[in-house]
Amino acid sequence: MALLERAQALQAAGRDILHLEVGEPDFPCPAPIMAAAGTALERGDTRYTPAAGLPALREAIARDYRERLGAPVSAEQVVVTPGASGALQLVMTALLNPGDEALLCDPGYPCNRQFVTLAGGVPKPLPLDVADQFRLSREKLAQYWGTATRLAMVASPDNPTGNRVDTAELSAMADWCAQQGGTLVVDEIYQGLCYGAPADTVLRHGDRAVVINSFSKYFGMTGWRLGWLVAPREMVSAVERLAQNWFLAPATVAQHAALAAFDEETLLIAEQRRQLLDRRRTLLLEALPALGLPVVGGAEGAFYLYLDVSRHTDDSFAFCRDLLEKAGVALTPGLDFGAGHDPHRYLRLAYTCDEDRLREALRRLADYLEAR
Amino acid sequence: MALLERAQALQAAGRDILHLEVGEPDFPCPAPIMAAAGTALERGDTRYTPAAGLPALREAIARDYRERLGAPVSAEQVVVTPGASGALQLVMTALLNPGDEALLCDPGYPCNRQFVTLAGGVPKPLPLDVADQFRLSREKLAQYWGTATRLAMVASPDNPTGNRVDTAELSAMADWCAQQGGTLVVDEIYQGLCYGAPADTVLRHGDRAVVINSFSKYFGMTGWRLGWLVAPREMVSAVERLAQNWFLAPATVAQHAALAAFDEETLLIAEQRRQLLDRRRTLLLEALPALGLPVVGGAEGAFYLYLDVSRHTDDSFAFCRDLLEKAGVALTPGLDFGAGHDPHRYLRLAYTCDEDRLREALRRLADYLEAR
Ligand SMILES: Cc1ncc(COP(=O)(O)O)c(C=O)c1O
Ligand SMILES: Cc1ncc(COP(=O)(O)O)c(C=O)c1O
Repeated sequence: MALLERAQALQAAGRDILHLEVGEPDFPCPAPIMAAAGTALERGDTRYTPAAGLPALREAIARDYRERLGAPVSAEQVVVTPGASGALQLVMTALLNPGDEALLCDPGYPCNRQFVTLAGGVPKPLPLDVADQFRLSREKLAQYWGTATRLAMVASPDNPTGNRVDTAELSAMADWCAQQGGTLVVDEIYQGLCYGAPADTVLRHGDRAVVINSFSKYFGMTGWRLGWLVAPREMVSAVERLAQNWFLAPATVAQHAALAAFDEETLLIAEQRRQLLDRRRTLLLEALPALGLPVVGGAEGAFYLYLDVSRHTDDSFAFCRDLLEKAGVALTPGLDFGAGHDPHRYLRLAYTCDEDRLREALRRLADYLEAR
Repeated sequence: MALLERAQALQAAGRDILHLEVGEPDFPCPAPIMAAAGTALERGDTRYTPAAGLPALREAIARDYRERLGAPVSAEQVVVTPGASGALQLVMTALLNPGDEALLCDPGYPCNRQFVTLAGGVPKPLPLDVADQFRLSREKLAQYWGTATRLAMVASPDNPTGNRVDTAELSAMADWCAQQGGTLVVDEIYQGLCYGAPADTVLRHGDRAVVINSFSKYFGMTGWRLGWLVAPREMVSAVERLAQNWFLAPATVAQHAALAAFDEETLLIAEQRRQLLDRRRTLLLEALPALGLPVVGGAEGAFYLYLDVSRHTDDSFAFCRDLLEKAGVALTPGLDFGAGHDPHRYLRLAYTCDEDRLREALRRLADYLEAR
């Protein structure tokens, strides 16, 4: 956060800053989604909706699981939420009682800790090994699962590593957690952003996992604040009641806009963007190791690369700060993603700017490392 | 909730239901706000904003306090949120540690309990007396404040009573709470909807209260999910950090739309609607007592009347259910607003439909009561 503010301050002061720290795609919201929003505006459709979302949107999401992803999801299992953020809050609170432990992949998405704490739970790091590319395995899960553990949380594709975990493997983990009386929560917010394999969901193999998703990333709807969760039927009414009390409802125009997300035209735009991201990724994967910045983590999805910077520093935070000041390149230090995985060795690069800017970033990085 | 679902089911089955249970105005979102939303759409302004909201909107809200309401509020004290709901979540969690008690006016807004519980706090009813029109006083506050109390919550104007508490009096209560090491939270979501007195804020008299507000009701923006809070400066950075983690940011197009809320044209529309609501209120205040339904509570604001139905029943829930089935009039039973104020005697009427429909409701009520 301190670095993000510093990057913005430098930019405001006229410096040309290369923003490789931002977890938001640089593409505009797709035209069909914007058009659907405009139509809802013209109709004046801006009143409260049901707490779990418009029935038509719940059905559209469920249909997409069935028809595009091949998973048997029904509309009653889907709850539309204010972003994946809202879904995470609902799921953590529905699943955790005060004192219950939640295992959080380390490295992993930083806000998860805060949702566990909000729910009265105890966040426990599940430190992953660089030797496994920081990838979650059944063995790791069993190793850290304790008597007070009620939940484990994994993202696939992952932030910050870009890792994908095989969905059959994830489903087996979900079954194992259920056998222990707990739940595996799978954050599929980067679902559509896969390289070298089609988009997939754990729900193709079973219904024990609780799934988080969002229109933010793949569908380019960040500022609309709209996501969803898919839960086993018996959990939904409790989740709906919480949503009714805390949120009243997700945003109305956003929901009407999102109805266009699964249109052929939108999916085509999203696919073109995925290809652009893949080109950026390829460019970086070729250039970074030559700078003494090997990529750890699978880099098979999302728009992040997790880099080992230990050849140049033993403090990735200080490195990021210095790089920002001297070269105007903003990156995110490993510490943001957890304390349990030796974070001072690592930093995250988000390829959320175009190839020209990425080449400029590589030039500046090379100059900076040479002068260091 | 059960009654609300039943009312919707009856309507779906073709019955003509008079909806006097809905806490949402029947007016469309004002045209200048819709136009501003359209402009933001055309600009493609849909990315994440800062967690506390667009600086221009925080400033516009603060300016409205200074110029229209005469309260010395600065932009740094304002945090824009996903509805008053989001503001309530932030404030309760920032102010309560696990085990801390929060006093909640009974009758009062039902979701407050859930926000306290979410924060790990213990909701304590602050039962108000019908002899005081269910109005909060300094004496009541002191009577129920205990050693574990950290917070008291009051809405003015209130849901469900329509009560207003004098703002100087509220400010004195806020000072008193601060002396006890606690905080008074004042929900001003119905601020603009005052009858017989101008809109007012506790912040005109001091800065100890934490204030909740929203674009939902007065500005007709329910489905946009946008509200705000005003807090003492030293509290803001903690609130901002929570908002960053839980919400990432409030909805972007909604924020650009809300920039038009304080335009002269919008305020004129809002004022005309307030006058329409006042006419409905006058109509009902004249007719209801003659039906043996005296209005308890001040009915000086919002769009609610709290009615004493004890002349006809000793179970207002059963009464509401029967009235819905037999006469197609939907009202909200007292139990929704707390268990501590003898709720079986009371029910809430929301005058969120036009005068013709209200007259029809009065006719059906009269027939129903006669046949009973
Ligand atoms: C892994 C992960 N989960 C959830 C979120 C929350 O996103 P949103 O609330 O915009 O859907 C993010 C955002 O960066 C993320 O990276
Ligand atoms: C007293 C009170 N506070 C807060 C809210 C929440 O409103 P919103 O989240 O739409 O701003 C309501 C809604 O009915 C209310 O009546």
